[in-house]
Amino acid sequence: MSNYTAPVEDMGFVLREVVELEKLCSETGADASTIDILDTVLEAAGKLAKEEIEPINKPGDLEGLKINNAGEVTTATGFKEAYHHYVEGGWGSLQFDPKYGGQGVPFVVAASVQEMWHSANMSWGLCPLLTQGAVEAITHNASDELKQRYLPKLISGKWSGTMNLTEGDAGTDVGALKTRATPEDDHYLIRGQKIYITWGEHDMAENIVHLVLARLPNAPEGVKGISLFLVPKILVNDDGSLGERNDLKALSLEEKIGIHACPTCVMSYGDKTGAIGFLIGEENKGIQCMFTMMNNARLTVGLQGVSVSERAYQQALSFCNIRVQGVAPGHKEAGPIVRHPDVQRMLSNMKSITEASRALTYSACAEVDFAASDLPTESLSQHKRRLGLLTPIVKGWCTETAQEVASLSLQCHGGMGYIEETGIAQIVRDARILPIYEGTNGIQAMDLVGRKIISDNGLGMNELIFEMQECANKDSLKELVSTAQLSRFKDSLYALENATSLVLSNSENKQHSGQIAFDVLMMVGTITATWQMLKSLDKAKIAFESNAVSADFFEEKSKTVNHFLNFILPRYLSNFATISSAS
Amino acid sequence: MSNYTAPVEDMGFVLREVVELEKLCSETGADASTIDILDTVLEAAGKLAKEEIEPINKPGDLEGLKINNAGEVTTATGFKEAYHHYVEGGWGSLQFDPKYGGQGVPFVVAASVQEMWHSANMSWGLCPLLTQGAVEAITHNASDELKQRYLPKLISGKWSGTMNLTEGDAGTDVGALKTRATPEDDHYLIRGQKIYITWGEHDMAENIVHLVLARLPNAPEGVKGISLFLVPKILVNDDGSLGERNDLKALSLEEKIGIHACPTCVMSYGDKTGAIGFLIGEENKGIQCMFTMMNNARLTVGLQGVSVSERAYQQALSFCNIRVQGVAPGHKEAGPIVRHPDVQRMLSNMKSITEASRALTYSACAEVDFAASDLPTESLSQHKRRLGLLTPIVKGWCTETAQEVASLSLQCHGGMGYIEETGIAQIVRDARILPIYEGTNGIQAMDLVGRKIISDNGLGMNELIFEMQECANKDSLKELVSTAQLSRFKDSLYALENATSLVLSNSENKQHSGQIAFDVLMMVGTITATWQMLKSLDKAKIAFESNAVSADFFEEKSKTVNHFLNFILPRYLSNFATISSAS
Repeated sequence: MSNYTAPVEDMGFVLREVVELEKLCSETGADASTIDILDTVLEAAGKLAKEEIEPINKPGDLEGLKINNAGEVTTATGFKEAYHHYVEGGWGSLQFDPKYGGQGVPFVVAASVQEMWHSANMSWGLCPLLTQGAVEAITHNASDELKQRYLPKLISGKWSGTMNLTEGDAGTDVGALKTRATPEDDHYLIRGQKIYITWGEHDMAENIVHLVLARLPNAPEGVKGISLFLVPKILVNDDGSLGERNDLKALSLEEKIGIHACPTCVMSYGDKTGAIGFLIGEENKGIQCMFTMMNNARLTVGLQGVSVSERAYQQALSFCNIRVQGVAPGHKEAGPIVRHPDVQRMLSNMKSITEASRALTYSACAEVDFAASDLPTESLSQHKRRLGLLTPIVKGWCTETAQEVASLSLQCHGGMGYIEETGIAQIVRDARILPIYEGTNGIQAMDLVGRKIISDNGLGMNELIFEMQECANKDSLKELVSTAQLSRFKDSLYALENATSLVLSNSENKQHSGQIAFDVLMMVGTITATWQMLKSLDKAKIAFESNAVSADFFEEKSKTVNHFLNFILPRYLSNFATISSAS
Repeated sequence: MSNYTAPVEDMGFVLREVVELEKLCSETGADASTIDILDTVLEAAGKLAKEEIEPINKPGDLEGLKINNAGEVTTATGFKEAYHHYVEGGWGSLQFDPKYGGQGVPFVVAASVQEMWHSANMSWGLCPLLTQGAVEAITHNASDELKQRYLPKLISGKWSGTMNLTEGDAGTDVGALKTRATPEDDHYLIRGQKIYITWGEHDMAENIVHLVLARLPNAPEGVKGISLFLVPKILVNDDGSLGERNDLKALSLEEKIGIHACPTCVMSYGDKTGAIGFLIGEENKGIQCMFTMMNNARLTVGLQGVSVSERAYQQALSFCNIRVQGVAPGHKEAGPIVRHPDVQRMLSNMKSITEASRALTYSACAEVDFAASDLPTESLSQHKRRLGLLTPIVKGWCTETAQEVASLSLQCHGGMGYIEETGIAQIVRDARILPIYEGTNGIQAMDLVGRKIISDNGLGMNELIFEMQECANKDSLKELVSTAQLSRFKDSLYALENATSLVLSNSENKQHSGQIAFDVLMMVGTITATWQMLKSLDKAKIAFESNAVSADFFEEKSKTVNHFLNFILPRYLSNFATISSAS
């Protein structure tokens, strides 16, 4: 029996009603036929996730990976087959440019489908995630020739992609990297060692396209002297067929606390003659190119947080409905533990955080679609600003809360949660990477405070606060939540205005900004998540009245939003007190 | 190189100045010579922890345990030797009755020594922890004959002890257990299966004394029908020598997310003829007897939280001092990451939580000494009330915060934290059991709200609030913290009064009590921890002025307490808002 069923009802609701997919399609010029087939797409993806990708999740954790002396990696049983079905189904190409074989579906719809892969199997899901990043970096920065040669196979998923940033002494400080690139003919020779390369080597795809940051001879120091190279595992002939092996290999796999079925490789480039690589974008502008892939990757990691929360919640709910233990208040006989108020609190925390993080993440993913469209300049810059602002919030808040939800799920299992057999321990172990990779959450917090609030003098944040205030003042909400709850939200917006002012007035004091940045991140995360919950409830009422959702769905949403307002929103109070007192 | 050095300076400070060990000895009639040799004891224990018990921690995690077909368990390399040195050093007998070979040292001092074992090696430390519980249950409930026969060997550590409560369908609901006890001659025959038996079988001690909950024929249903039995692995002859094997064995070991070197056994009793057991206390009063061991075990699990936090903090600090990455504000060159403000925030959160949880836990452990003394009735009941009140707070708050501190330590390691090699992943995995065993933290929350606040109509809580108010009003604190910080503490006490009233006025509504119980637990934990921090700072100033601590120590304590007031105390605000809004 699969432990995961895709929550297609809530996904469809958020896409249609909260994100307003129809409006999005019409404003961005995206193909509106997506809307008609949305349910079919979600159902089909859900089936693949449930029937093929989830069943290999736990076995993959137990079996792990093998690497031989030649550096060849064998994935766990069934991984390759599931991946082939994914490629055959065209799931990798949803949001990409039809010019290169993509399907031109909005990114936000592709994101909802990706949510399923990561819920079903995080180790497995990371392979397409990295490929998506490579496609984006190539699409936005590479020459037409490289695009023609590499994009169609990457988009189809026949080839997979990687990001090679980190070295032993260059993690967060990527500018410290030492891998060298030497020009030769129409290409470069790459020499160096990279670590933590996710899906750096494996047997699921015919070829692997590595995007590698390296330094040219005499390049300036730091981030201004790094360039981005496309370095294929197998060289590609002019006719597109696969040629010789490039001079690169996986040296070893890391022993990690989780995602045991995902190969995290130490990669060596150019041990013999130098690995042949092709420049992407301009020389010494590699970091900008990398950010085009990293920003969306950060959103997608936030999405993985949603996936983990959803999966952990489903597992807890099904356990608590079955596990009989003790007589709950109002009952006379022992019954399932879901009856106990403290268990209900844990489940409601999990459910409401999951739904809030989904709405928040999807709304940020929709900004990717707007930001890539042909909207008029002013509107376009506003969407870009919003996307930039929401990215660290989604990455930070949704991955921090995913730790909490996974841990709560384990807690619901009692002693059984601590035993590997139950499976929830794996979810917790897998999830722990989320606050670390694609920029630690400390880095997200600094990005939010430094680049997104201080650098534009609070413009984007104030736009956001204004929009949330408009939401808070909607008459329709007064019937849906209590006056006290609505006041709490309004108070939080007022506090957020104050916090923003404090950040701006202390902007010269980097010690101060750094100390409070994480609290700012969590405060903004909680408040924007609340905004999305209120919006969801408001839209659910309208959708219910027009028979677009069931009475049950509306009622459940109402309970969940009310719980969030009482049990989660108040957290901003402690962040704000810390920000104020440390200022 | 050992990854742990016992924090003897802070331990000695808390014992001498915060807990006021001298006063404790004189009021409880404990042997005051402990005070003179305190430093020697702490140094010697610290040496054993650092040099013998810590070095086998990581190897033990990797090697794990072996069980053969006969149910014999082999512990990891070095575990047996370290245990023998522990027994030879008399470390197991510190706090016990000299009548049975104990050393009559106050419990709070023994607790500080135990903190070290669990920091050094949680898997290993659980063996003495369980033995301590068995000694307490036997001391308070068993016949003189059983005491004479079993206590000296358990107290010395030559034999170890276990607690056998849980069965497949009886976890939190211990009253649902099915193990049977049939009277025969001077003993009983025990038949049944128990799960999650920590150190249920191993090769470190000559004998294992199992304390087993079971049902007599025709016993009433539920907890009122369970009795406690002493069931030795090897029967003991009248002359005290070891006789035949009893009819019990370990069937299997659980595969857990952590504490891999600690045998968590499925135990089978009476497969052949019935396991011979001896009644402890009266028939059908087993649950009361079990609670005499469980209450102190709960405190000790809270203490393990302190241990984990200390260990995790030390590891993060040493990593952040070595790891070079990026240029911090105010610097011109790349340097160790400890210079970065967000890293400093994480380290200060870790350090201040660790010291607060130590002071809180030791102060609760001191209540064990008072509660066991010959004080006048009124004073005695006040100490017993305080001990009862603090027990779920210490167990709950110190183990929840230990998760946070362990996770922060992993986060400080960046990508390396996710790799098992660094060792911090093991700390996180090991620590995850703490909120579960000896009563989940949900159960602690219910115990606090139901048995400790509602049942005595707020008496104990109001005594505690009054004492904290007295502390808040001390003139000496005004020079040590800001007016705003002191007001925040006073506000928190006022909120706690309100929260207590809300709990009491809704006491009939068990649904309500259950929903808010966890927030009450965390709120009280944060506030009592703050109280202990303010007390610590006040005492540190006095100690500094009398040269009892160094200027550095006082200054560090001042920074740590100030950080706690700004970054940790504000958390009560969100708990209180939740308690209020859900009421």
